Order: sequence, then C-alpha cells, then structure tokens
Amino acid sequence: MNFNKKKLLVLGLVLALLIGMIAVPRGEADVLSEGMQTVEAASEDRAKYMFLFIGDGMAHVQVNAAQVFTGNSKPGEIKPGKINFLDFPITGVATTQDSTSFCPDSASTATSIAGGVKTHSGVIGLTQDKKNKVETIAETAKKNGKKVGIISSVTLNHATPAAFYANVESRGSYYEIGKQMADSGFDYFAGGSLGARKDKSGDKKDLYDVMKEKGYKVTETKADFERINAKTGKVYAVAERLQDSGSMPYSIDQNKNDISLANFVDKGIEVLDNDKGFFMMVESGKIDWACHANDAATTAREVLGFADAIQVAIDFYNKHPEETLILITGDHETGGLTIGQSTTGYETAFEMLRNQKMSFTEMDNLIKAELEKKPNLTFEEMKPLIRNWTSLIFPSQANNSIEYSLGEHEEMTLVLTDYEVNLIKNAFEKTKAIHNAGKPPEDMASQENYILYGGYEPLSVTLTHILNNKSGVGWTSYSHTGVPVAVYAIGPTAETYGGFYDNTDIYHKMMKSFGYK
Amino acid sequence: MNFNKKKLLVLGLVLALLIGMIAVPRGEADVLSEGMQTVEAASEDRAKYMFLFIGDGMAHVQVNAAQVFTGNSKPGEIKPGKINFLDFPITGVATTQDSTSFCPDSASTATSIAGGVKTHSGVIGLTQDKKNKVETIAETAKKNGKKVGIISSVTLNHATPAAFYANVESRGSYYEIGKQMADSGFDYFAGGSLGARKDKSGDKKDLYDVMKEKGYKVTETKADFERINAKTGKVYAVAERLQDSGSMPYSIDQNKNDISLANFVDKGIEVLDNDKGFFMMVESGKIDWACHANDAATTAREVLGFADAIQVAIDFYNKHPEETLILITGDHETGGLTIGQSTTGYETAFEMLRNQKMSFTEMDNLIKAELEKKPNLTFEEMKPLIRNWTSLIFPSQANNSIEYSLGEHEEMTLVLTDYEVNLIKNAFEKTKAIHNAGKPPEDMASQENYILYGGYEPLSVTLTHILNNKSGVGWTSYSHTGVPVAVYAIGPTAETYGGFYDNTDIYHKMMKSFGYK
Repeated sequence: MNFNKKKLLVLGLVLALLIGMIAVPRGEADVLSEGMQTVEAASEDRAKYMFLFIGDGMAHVQVNAAQVFTGNSKPGEIKPGKINFLDFPITGVATTQDSTSFCPDSASTATSIAGGVKTHSGVIGLTQDKKNKVETIAETAKKNGKKVGIISSVTLNHATPAAFYANVESRGSYYEIGKQMADSGFDYFAGGSLGARKDKSGDKKDLYDVMKEKGYKVTETKADFERINAKTGKVYAVAERLQDSGSMPYSIDQNKNDISLANFVDKGIEVLDNDKGFFMMVESGKIDWACHANDAATTAREVLGFADAIQVAIDFYNKHPEETLILITGDHETGGLTIGQSTTGYETAFEMLRNQKMSFTEMDNLIKAELEKKPNLTFEEMKPLIRNWTSLIFPSQANNSIEYSLGEHEEMTLVLTDYEVNLIKNAFEKTKAIHNAGKPPEDMASQENYILYGGYEPLSVTLTHILNNKSGVGWTSYSHTGVPVAVYAIGPTAETYGGFYDNTDIYHKMMKSFGYK
Repeated sequence: MNFNKKKLLVLGLVLALLIGMIAVPRGEADVLSEGMQTVEAASEDRAKYMFLFIGDGMAHVQVNAAQVFTGNSKPGEIKPGKINFLDFPITGVATTQDSTSFCPDSASTATSIAGGVKTHSGVIGLTQDKKNKVETIAETAKKNGKKVGIISSVTLNHATPAAFYANVESRGSYYEIGKQMADSGFDYFAGGSLGARKDKSGDKKDLYDVMKEKGYKVTETKADFERINAKTGKVYAVAERLQDSGSMPYSIDQNKNDISLANFVDKGIEVLDNDKGFFMMVESGKIDWACHANDAATTAREVLGFADAIQVAIDFYNKHPEETLILITGDHETGGLTIGQSTTGYETAFEMLRNQKMSFTEMDNLIKAELEKKPNLTFEEMKPLIRNWTSLIFPSQANNSIEYSLGEHEEMTLVLTDYEVNLIKNAFEKTKAIHNAGKPPEDMASQENYILYGGYEPLSVTLTHILNNKSGVGWTSYSHTGVPVAVYAIGPTAETYGGFYDNTDIYHKMMKSFGYK
C-alpha cells in the first residue's frame, strides 16, 4: 500500500467515524439490535461462488480432536495441530434441535440448513406438517442461473445431500429420492453410489440408468472421472472403489489410487465455474458413521480428509477472494465426543490413536473373515491380530519395559489392564457367538450390553473404546446428540455468520449472501 | 433517527466504501489477513467499561444444557429456552490447552486469559519457566486509572480470581495468594470467603485481618453488604451464608435471603463506576464443581444463576452501549457434558432434572446425617429419601401407571430399571461402608470403581448419574476436558472476539479493547 492510499484510507475512516458519531442515535438500541446494526452495515457485498461444507456429525470437538490428533501432546510441548479452516475469521454457533427432538437426525437438520424450516426427524424437504415442499438454497441458486454441485462421501440419495433437492416424508425412500435427484437438473453430483438402486424390491430400473435418461453422464471409474471437464454437461461421478453401504472408503482406509473428496471438489470447480457463479455443497458423511461407532482415530482422519477437500475451496477462494464465500458447518453432533475421559483424567495421548491401522468397519470385515476360516477361533489366537490392528498390547505380549511407557506420559500405556483384557475377552466371546449363531443372543438388547456395544460388533467397538479411553477420548452416545455445531466462514458476507443462532438461520443467511433476500 | 441524520449516515457509509474500494489493495491477501483486515478496520472504538464473566468449566454445552433445561422438550414443541447472552452478536471459540496438558486446570487457563501467556497446570501468574511474573489486564487497567473488581462464587484466593492479581508457583499456596490479594490495591472483591485464612498450620494472622490492615472494609453479613456504597473505599464483601469450602451456595441451594452473584455484580458497579471506567471479572466457580461431580441439574441452575449476574451487566450496557464491553467465556470445559447419551438415544427429557431438589453436596450432607443417626440404615429405609431428593421412583414405589410415563415421552420414565436399582444399591452399600469405617475400602481406587464414582460419595454420584442418564445427559469425565470454550461478546470492539483462537488471545484482544496495545 503506498502513502497516498494509506492517507486516503485513514481519511475515509476518520470521516466515517465522525459522521457515524453524529448520525447514529445512541443509547436507544437494545441488546440485539445494537449488535445487528454492525453486521448489517458490513454485509453490503455479495457472494458469486458459495461452498457449503457439511461435516455430518461434526461439532467443535470433532474438529478439535483432529487438532489434538495431529498436534503434540508431550507435556511441556503441548500444541494443537493446524486445521486450515480454523483460520477463518468468523465463527458462529448453531443449535440443531428439530421438531421431534433435541438430538435430531440428518434429514431434518439438512432440511433446516438447505431450506430454512424445522421439520420432524426423518423428513426431507417438507415443512413440519409434511404438507409443503421446501425450496432449497440450491434450487433457488439454480433458478437464478448459477450452476449447482452436490458432493457426498456417502450415497448421493442419503439424507444430507437429498435435503438439497428432494421432498419426501421418509429418508428411507431411497429410490424415490434417486428419481428426484435425476429430476433436479443440478449440474454436478459426485462421491458415493446410490442406495437402493433398483428399489427395495430389486426390480425397478437401475437409478444410474434413470440418471442417464435425464441427461447425466455417470462415471464409475477413475479413468472416466478424470476425463470429465467443463464441456461434459451434467454429470454424476461415482468413486471407483466403494466401502460400506455404497460409500467412499474412510480416509483411514483410502489408498492413493482412490478418488478423494478433495479430487471431487477440484473436478466440481472445473465443471461448475461460469460467469454466473455456483453453489457447491460438500458433505463428509462418514464423520458421523465413525462417531456413531465411537471410533476416534477414524473420526480424526475423516476430519483431516474433509480439511483436504476444504483446502481446494480455499485455493479457489485465494484466486477469487471478493466473490467466494466458504462456509463449514455440521448438521448435528454425533457420539458425544470429548477430549479427556474419566480414567485418564487430565492426561491425553492421542498419539496412541495414530497406531490404529484401519476403521472399525475394516476390523469387522477381518473379524468376520477370521471366523469364517475358523469358527472356534480362540482368544489367544485373536490377540496378535488385535495388537496388529490397534497396537494395544496384552500383558503377556509385553516383553520389555519400554512398551509400558509412552514417551513422556508416565501413566499412559498401550499395555492393557486386567479389567480391559476382561472387557475384550467378553466382547470377543459375544462376537464369536453372534457370528456362529448367525444372530445376536437374547441379552444383547439389555441396558448393560447396549451401553457396552450399542448394537455394534462387540469386539471392534470394545477395541476402539479401550484405545480411545487409554488415549484420553470420551464418548457418551452411539447416537446423535444435542451439542450445538460450529459455523466457520470466510469471504464476502462472512461476518453475518458470527454469533449464536438456529440452524434454520444458516439458510436465511445464505440467501442473503447470494442476494436473494 | 430523523431524515438528516439518516442522510448523513448513508453519505458517510458511501464515502467510506468508495475510499475503502480505492485504498485497500485486493487479491493480495492470504486467508488469514483478508479476514483480519475487516476486523481491524471495525475496531477503532474502545471500551471504557469491561466485564469479563468466566464460567469455570463452562463450554458451549454447559450453556446449551441450560437452554434445554429451561426449554420445552415435548416432541413437536421442541424449543430451547432463552439465555440472555446467547443474543450477543459475536461468538468466538478458544482452545484451552496449557503447557502441561490438553486438559488444563483453572490456574494455567486463567493465567492465559488474564495475562496472555501459557504456563503449567497449577501455576498462577508466572511464565512457563516459572521465572517471570505476568502483568494481568486487571493490573494494567488499575495502573491506567481504572477501578478493578474481582468477584467469584468460590473463595477469592481460588485459582481463577487469583490469576488476576497473584503470582505463585502453586495454586495451593492459598495464604500467600491471600496476602497478594491484600496487596493488589484492587477496589472491590466480592463473593466467597478465603481458603486457609490462617494458613495450613492455622497459626498465621487471619487473612481477613490482613485485608483490613491494607485498607479493605470486610463485610460478612448481608446488612453490612447492603451498606456498601461508592464512598466506602476498598472493600471485600463476603457472602453471609457459605457452603462447601467457603464458597457461596449453589444456585439450586440458594434461598431468597442469600446474596446472589447478581447482587455482587450490582454492588460492584456502584462501587467501581467512575470517570475512567472499570474492569470487572466475575467468576461462576461452581459450574466447574457441579460438572466435576457430573450433577447436571445443579450445573444447569448454576449457569442460569450466572446468566442472572450477566443480566446486571447487560442492564448497565444498555445504559452505556458505546462504552461497555461484555465478554463471557469459560476457562476450560469440565466433565465432558453432552446433551444425549447412549441408552436414551435420540430422546431427551430434561424436565426430569427440574425435580432434583438440591445439589449433590447437600445430598452428601443429608446422607452423612442419616448415617450419623443410624449407622445400620437399610436400603429400604433409604429409598423414600432418594425419591424425595431426586424424584427417581423405585419399582416398588410405583403404584400407578401414570408414574411410568413422562408426558409425551413414551419411553422416558423416572421409574428405575432393575439394572439401575442394582447400581444404586451397590453405591449405597459402598457409601455406608466408607462412612462406618471412616475411610474408603481398598478397591475404591480400582479402574471400575473410579469409572463409577470418580472419588465422589458413591450414592450421590450414582443418583445424579442415573437421573442424568434417564433424562438424556451424558458425561465422560470427572476432570476437566480439552473441549474448546465459547466467547460471547457485545459492545465496542466486540467484533474482534469472533473466530477461532487460543485463550491467550483473549488477553491480547482485551488489551486492545482498552486501547493499551
């Protein structure tokens, strides 16, 4: 900035201040309106491009856990790791309750964010009375000439992405949602596959074919994905390798050949960029799944994979800072995650989590494979596998004292206590019994067993629970919670996203950011 | 606002915008600086009066829990209650790790907030090497001619208040801290009593007398408190009725004759108001204690009592909106509180918590009194007391079906399951054994018993755990956690408190808000 510009800026500020002092009546405003005036005055500019990143199940703590996971937890050198979007200048907090509950679901909360109304858990794109369709920010953007992209790491007819284009009474109506997706006219869908592609009955037309009939190019390989460009037209790009329920693999389970969420965002920008701008919603859907299963390592790595995808938007923002608004939020919290838990007290050692080699889902697959091979597998035979997957050490395996201490954390160790060994043994026996009987034993629904396993594979959930607890991670639930979510914002109108508000307000703020209100 | 003023304001804004457009170089800024420029430009004004409210152990969820507690949790009518400071226009998020741990303590975190440095857990007002004294925002304000008030619901030489005036290697040096309090020269201390008034040995000069020698008027009755006014001079007002460890009674245990935290803030304004302004730090210290004990009802009511105290500052703000900055934050989170927990899944019924009649502390007192009267008290004799204190219903007490359902929540009931009855019975036997033996049994330190009781009175902590769990409250710890805290701001320079930052930044921001940097 040269001297003349600086002088002009100072003069401008002084003038504005002076005039402001004369003109603004003071002392009349109440608590809210005083603050809001500042916000209104500053939000004159508008966004041309808007990225809305939704971490399913992601509240403040999921992000902070990823910070601690990548940080240094050695006493005296404590430092959280860097997460790119935590540098955004504006943060807000949003409540997430829906019409049914303070612990809402993704259908209702995504409807609130996408369309600004409260509705019942399980309902997509309809008002609380289920009578009126909700027009979403994505649909309004499309009508106004912008291009629209919807990306999700889970299936594209799952609740969160669906809430931007569908209107159905039940999130479980996957086939109907898929048809509405084909009718949306949106320009870019990418990520996971589709649920119930031939409906529950399995005899309907494949939804991929329905998409093609409506003019979408559907790609299912990485080679085809890479050939997509701005001239391809409407497109639905599916990850080549899929994991559970048609979703993209967890970040922790991805290899370099997999198409990442970041790749899908990058391609999305190429497809969507045009003179009128675009709206792109990107969901990281499996943060929620990892949190449901109380798997902290998988959760942290999933948030980091999400941050990689967000980095692509930040790079775009840096090229178009006056026109690009990036919003990051969650639809609700999942799992009641905390940094710290009862037995570790004031100590944490998240570096332990870095040794977990795979998601609970992959562990489940391996456990099943082992039991297929050998139905009467013994606990002793299981121990080396458990150590390999999780780095947890059975006392009988600990052959030297080094393994008992973890760096500077004197009291933190990967060596299991007798109490923990017993928990694992009980879980292993339950898992074996379930597998060999082909169904859960009668007592699995008891209050005690639900607290222990939450309906998950007893062995894997017990292993991640113990690894979590030893490293200082706590969970309170296998479900969503009522913990409020964060909103991080950068770009034009970002300042309107500060403060504490309801998730329906995110919609209203986005409408204003695009100048539609 | 009349027409001329409006015209002038619009002109001013247009001028500022035009000049800003000419003068600010665009497209060169990186992610952070782009956002920060907006903040810098807006923070030309300064605060004359600053209120810093610190909820010890209070993060987003403690506040949100109070919202749910006062709200409506009937499906279809779900609505969080109103908490005054959630209307503030600006929210920020602060990380709380100290030099020792991601789960820090109040000594180090309050030092970070008060003085802008990181230090070890347990250390007050000294740098990480423990060699250099930290000058706090309160001390700088005092030097600059402002009056200073320090209020806490716990003892005034406890870690959080101490961090604003003391410099000691150990927070446990209460007597030394008390002496430094007397030397601070601050204008107004109020709230709880002092720890170790005659030192651990009990043979030193009473700290109240030390305070008097340094010119403080010490009041210990409500009548004397009410006589304090702007002409009293330096004053230390102690609550007439004290509860555990010299603290003010929990809000849930207060009666209308008790001096409330709000009363102390109100009197503080009267004492401190002057032409040069003031700095007032108000700590609600027992949110932390209630969270340590995992007592949700007491926590929620404590946050509401805190909001009442904040209302006094809001009323002052409404009289002096251009000069008054109010900040609300927490020093760290305690307990790993979540709304929702495993067995209740997506249901919550916080109205159950409204029936809890007293804090766990008062329950402990009553349990002790019962066992004093009758050492061989039976579980059957205990049941009616438990029902009276908590509203939990033993199956044998449930004599009609109405008691089984709780309004609209079909699956939510205050009637105990056999599993829960068993937990209470075990806890009661442990409590009885501890009381009658005069010491804990050897197995109390086992991992299993620590998870269950955390070193608290087994019966009361089990009762609050069960009441919490039935109403949908989860906890992960008896200690502090690494969950980040919220910052809520209103008034001049409030916009500089948005975004995600470290708790040391709160100090630097406050210094700028007062114009000292």
